[in-house]
Amino acid sequence: MIIVMDKDATPEQLQAVIAWVEGQGYRTHLSQGEERTIVGVVGNDRPLDHNQVERMAGVERTVRILAPYKLASLDMQPEPTLVPLNGLKIGDKQVALIAGPCSVESREQILEAAHAVKEAGATALRGGAFKPRTSPYSFQGLGLAGLELLAEAREQTGLPVVTEVMAPEQVSLVAQYADVLQVGARNMQNYNLLRAVGSTNHPVLLKRGMMSTMEELLMSAEYILSCGNPSVMLCERGIRTFETYTRNTFDVNAIPALKARTHLPVLADPSHGTGHWEYVESVALAAVAAGADGLLIEVHPHPEQALSDGLQSLKPERFADLVKRLRAVAEAIGRSL
Amino acid sequence: MIIVMDKDATPEQLQAVIAWVEGQGYRTHLSQGEERTIVGVVGNDRPLDHNQVERMAGVERTVRILAPYKLASLDMQPEPTLVPLNGLKIGDKQVALIAGPCSVESREQILEAAHAVKEAGATALRGGAFKPRTSPYSFQGLGLAGLELLAEAREQTGLPVVTEVMAPEQVSLVAQYADVLQVGARNMQNYNLLRAVGSTNHPVLLKRGMMSTMEELLMSAEYILSCGNPSVMLCERGIRTFETYTRNTFDVNAIPALKARTHLPVLADPSHGTGHWEYVESVALAAVAAGADGLLIEVHPHPEQALSDGLQSLKPERFADLVKRLRAVAEAIGRSL
Amino acid sequence: MIIVMDKDATPEQLQAVIAWVEGQGYRTHLSQGEERTIVGVVGNDRPLDHNQVERMAGVERTVRILAPYKLASLDMQPEPTLVPLNGLKIGDKQVALIAGPCSVESREQILEAAHAVKEAGATALRGGAFKPRTSPYSFQGLGLAGLELLAEAREQTGLPVVTEVMAPEQVSLVAQYADVLQVGARNMQNYNLLRAVGSTNHPVLLKRGMMSTMEELLMSAEYILSCGNPSVMLCERGIRTFETYTRNTFDVNAIPALKARTHLPVLADPSHGTGHWEYVESVALAAVAAGADGLLIEVHPHPEQALSDGLQSLKPERFADLVKRLRAVAEAIGRSL
Amino acid sequence: MIIVMDKDATPEQLQAVIAWVEGQGYRTHLSQGEERTIVGVVGNDRPLDHNQVERMAGVERTVRILAPYKLASLDMQPEPTLVPLNGLKIGDKQVALIAGPCSVESREQILEAAHAVKEAGATALRGGAFKPRTSPYSFQGLGLAGLELLAEAREQTGLPVVTEVMAPEQVSLVAQYADVLQVGARNMQNYNLLRAVGSTNHPVLLKRGMMSTMEELLMSAEYILSCGNPSVMLCERGIRTFETYTRNTFDVNAIPALKARTHLPVLADPSHGTGHWEYVESVALAAVAAGADGLLIEVHPHPEQALSDGLQSLKPERFADLVKRLRAVAEAIGRSL
Repeated sequence: MIIVMDKDATPEQLQAVIAWVEGQGYRTHLSQGEERTIVGVVGNDRPLDHNQVERMAGVERTVRILAPYKLASLDMQPEPTLVPLNGLKIGDKQVALIAGPCSVESREQILEAAHAVKEAGATALRGGAFKPRTSPYSFQGLGLAGLELLAEAREQTGLPVVTEVMAPEQVSLVAQYADVLQVGARNMQNYNLLRAVGSTNHPVLLKRGMMSTMEELLMSAEYILSCGNPSVMLCERGIRTFETYTRNTFDVNAIPALKARTHLPVLADPSHGTGHWEYVESVALAAVAAGADGLLIEVHPHPEQALSDGLQSLKPERFADLVKRLRAVAEAIGRSL
Repeated sequence: MIIVMDKDATPEQLQAVIAWVEGQGYRTHLSQGEERTIVGVVGNDRPLDHNQVERMAGVERTVRILAPYKLASLDMQPEPTLVPLNGLKIGDKQVALIAGPCSVESREQILEAAHAVKEAGATALRGGAFKPRTSPYSFQGLGLAGLELLAEAREQTGLPVVTEVMAPEQVSLVAQYADVLQVGARNMQNYNLLRAVGSTNHPVLLKRGMMSTMEELLMSAEYILSCGNPSVMLCERGIRTFETYTRNTFDVNAIPALKARTHLPVLADPSHGTGHWEYVESVALAAVAAGADGLLIEVHPHPEQALSDGLQSLKPERFADLVKRLRAVAEAIGRSL
Repeated sequence: MIIVMDKDATPEQLQAVIAWVEGQGYRTHLSQGEERTIVGVVGNDRPLDHNQVERMAGVERTVRILAPYKLASLDMQPEPTLVPLNGLKIGDKQVALIAGPCSVESREQILEAAHAVKEAGATALRGGAFKPRTSPYSFQGLGLAGLELLAEAREQTGLPVVTEVMAPEQVSLVAQYADVLQVGARNMQNYNLLRAVGSTNHPVLLKRGMMSTMEELLMSAEYILSCGNPSVMLCERGIRTFETYTRNTFDVNAIPALKARTHLPVLADPSHGTGHWEYVESVALAAVAAGADGLLIEVHPHPEQALSDGLQSLKPERFADLVKRLRAVAEAIGRSL
Repeated sequence: MIIVMDKDATPEQLQAVIAWVEGQGYRTHLSQGEERTIVGVVGNDRPLDHNQVERMAGVERTVRILAPYKLASLDMQPEPTLVPLNGLKIGDKQVALIAGPCSVESREQILEAAHAVKEAGATALRGGAFKPRTSPYSFQGLGLAGLELLAEAREQTGLPVVTEVMAPEQVSLVAQYADVLQVGARNMQNYNLLRAVGSTNHPVLLKRGMMSTMEELLMSAEYILSCGNPSVMLCERGIRTFETYTRNTFDVNAIPALKARTHLPVLADPSHGTGHWEYVESVALAAVAAGADGLLIEVHPHPEQALSDGLQSLKPERFADLVKRLRAVAEAIGRSL
């Protein structure tokens, strides 16, 4: 950390800052500019709280030098984390393809969807049994019955199951049925939930909050990693902006910008990222071209009857066609799918 | 709801849409423009899911006519909800003043803070025992011990206690100690938590998510109300924007815009809304002038030693001075404080 | 347009609205719902001003049915506009590649850059002679001397020149030297400038404002088109969000979402869209995969000496390598480059 | 400036950076941390371009220590700038009140408005003759005829006139008629226009762009100041966010945050800041309570007939009532109005 002193800071204030910092067990290093004096803080097993320093008399502001996440950083682990899922290693050369409906709605629907995405080339099945919905009057998911149907779909197709968990007390139940625990965008900073999934052995798919920075996403991953679970996959799913033609703004920059900082796999969800099935294909192709390690795509056998997210779901035949185009782009950049 | 058909929709597509809508138990009303045909949907105990309609062939988009919240709306209850708190009725003429430190840190700190804010004129004490923190390495709160200290501070000062609850399984514990259950900004869409506090008899202080629209805030209030708890207070605490000079952007517009839609009290938190104690006073005065029913202000006896949010906390003496100025502004607009 | 009346609107207010609308030469169409009455407005050579209607007593709000742009819309012209540029038709199967430095800095620099991008496969040269800079103390461009150097670079390489024009009174001068007139992001709503470039015969490259909606971009294109110049190219270059790891957030959704509405070519600028050369390659590949009709890429022979935007400029050898990868992705989606 | 070296920077890279910086005429100061080496740059008549440094091998990033604006800063001038306007000194104890219609529409309208706001207590008249409109099909203002009508209104009422100038070539014309030149939000970064108004002796009212940070606003003020015109007033008028209940989000934080940095007066425009007349009053009161030096309020004798912004305009009688309440709040905080 660097401490920038006020233009008018007195020598006494400067001494008090130095004394306090050194009293916390750090060394300091002084740099006298023409308009500002700067105190470098050296030694950092654990960073000083910038709030405390900034409240001291004579301090203008502080500047952080090191990233606040550690376990998630490339500094800590330069080689990529590979998350094993049913024979595939997510984060490796092959791009993962997780597809299925937004919600599990019925036995018929989830089995039809599972077979369709399997046949088209998906590597895992997605589907929600517990659904976070903005309105208390909307369909909230089938709950346990939905989990049982997902397990049946896995048995029939061999596809591993990715499904959302919404509360700490649900984790052990969901973990009995799911192969991957998904933490949704609205829960990215539900720290009790992060700790709960961090205490399992299941891979976790952590979605970026719709108004969370990449750094906050990495800090939420850090919660999970620091509980001892190393299998975290990040997922860009669109952020909230002023634009209204699309439901969210898919932040394609996040793919290279996260990969420049972390060894964790980075996935992309173009269905939520756009909110309109007409745009899903273009953005899915873009995500693969940008280097995403996997895709989450909503596919529904009858989108016009979907109880949630019908507007952004692809029909199975369009999805099958898209997979071919995704494969061509993956191969053009030296990967497979 | 209104359904706008595509420019090129066929008569068959139009008939299919009408048939489907009427099959759901609604009446329709057709309006033939020169470039678009519009189908009005009449009858709405429960609104049609726009996603389903928008996926039908020939439909361009739908337009919602009614607000998605009901219990929270002025349509449902034109007179203001008054939330009783220790003799005060929040939502009435007197502006509530909830003050105290971000976190309970020690017995000495919380008692000193409680006495100071009481003396300055506060009507309730705030302080966190469970703290949602971006970093797993930051101070996470004293937990149960913090709740016990808050109860002791209440006993000494007579101030009711407002404190945050972070997870459904904590609700019954926190409710034993707190007078008001606070749902924090990061948990505004933690629906399991909303249902849990909605099942208590305690007043709930619901903070707007930093990434949430006013409508989403009202929908989250609707979750609580629909569980049978009528005592919900909304709180504007700053939203996330592109601006970097302040930690958040306090949305003062939200005060009149929420009051134009809901009967629930609207409070303001200028400490989080700005993130800098130097700006808290101006924005607190602004919030009262704009019609806020109460304020949450962070006050710490020694901000430079605070374990969280020291940068945005006022010292007791500044707070005492601010209260006088707040009172003058409250009286200038015909209220008291 | 549709007019939604207040829940409590009186029959007299409704009649007054109908009378006023019909007095403006429109027909109306009434739809009586259970909670709201809706007035459809039929006939629209020119739309009613929603502000005027919304101020009438008893009116809750209005809803627009038709897009506010006309000449730019697919309704008006379903087939794509092809903008001819030195033998290439932008908007057709081949992806255009416009590359060069942010600013023209010296004869040596622009000639070296021009030869390098030509050799790597660029189809046009970019470079700024007039530069909009946030600070009055930053390099403001070489002006006329820069235009002359661009002309010399064109003569040597055969590459057409794309350069920015900042003010109406500069248009005729810049048009003497440039093949394409660029309107920069900060000037997207400089209407005097839009009219000035709309009165020339030069193709115009219109960049999206960093906080402008796609609809505002289309409206700004409409200004140019309505002045009689049909050769407008749109360019997504990143929007401003809360994210800080990147300079802007490249809105890849805009590529399919604009193409769903307009016949104008849509280009992408990953250099400004990311602000970091390390991310430019991923996002350039993504833009091509998403269907962009062309790319603008900053290339500088010596980025570390650049007077502007050095941080987001590629070196010529990286650019040459990128072109090969872009070509592979373009071919994977059935285009060329 | 501070230069943070990469974790893996070699001693040669560090030496190259130091040599380059010193070659530019600065001194350097080295601070060796445990994980990063930091180079302080001392001496700054004119700051180093961070882009250039950040492109050097071994450099991770740079950190700016000093604000990029100088003439606008409190460092340069600690006492407030007072802008004289018809006997009033804007920036002093009395809050200025600039009111009138969005556009000059007719002789009758502007004269009626001028007399009404004068009588209610306004200190200046606002009204647009040249109007920046999103659509080329909207009313674009009366131009010269509008300026003449404003001059007539001034003659009749004695109110000085504030009106917008949209292009450099209009400045001398508008300056013949106006007392204050307004630069609108869309033109805040139209640098040719900033230089043109900076070359006059007229006070300039500079509105914050809806997409602009406070720092960019200060940099645009710096353009005007650096051309020799010291009479610049800043105006917060709402920024663009994700919220949709209001047209813009009025950033009340900007009032104290700008005043903590600059000596220039800070005004507020609650009409554009909210976009709805129903919210204008609350936000106007808030702005005064927060310390604004003046208000811009849209008042129209017949808002339902307004050719622009009718939705956010107050009727004269409401405005007159508001002035009394504004005065009470101003006096409550020790100012007058």
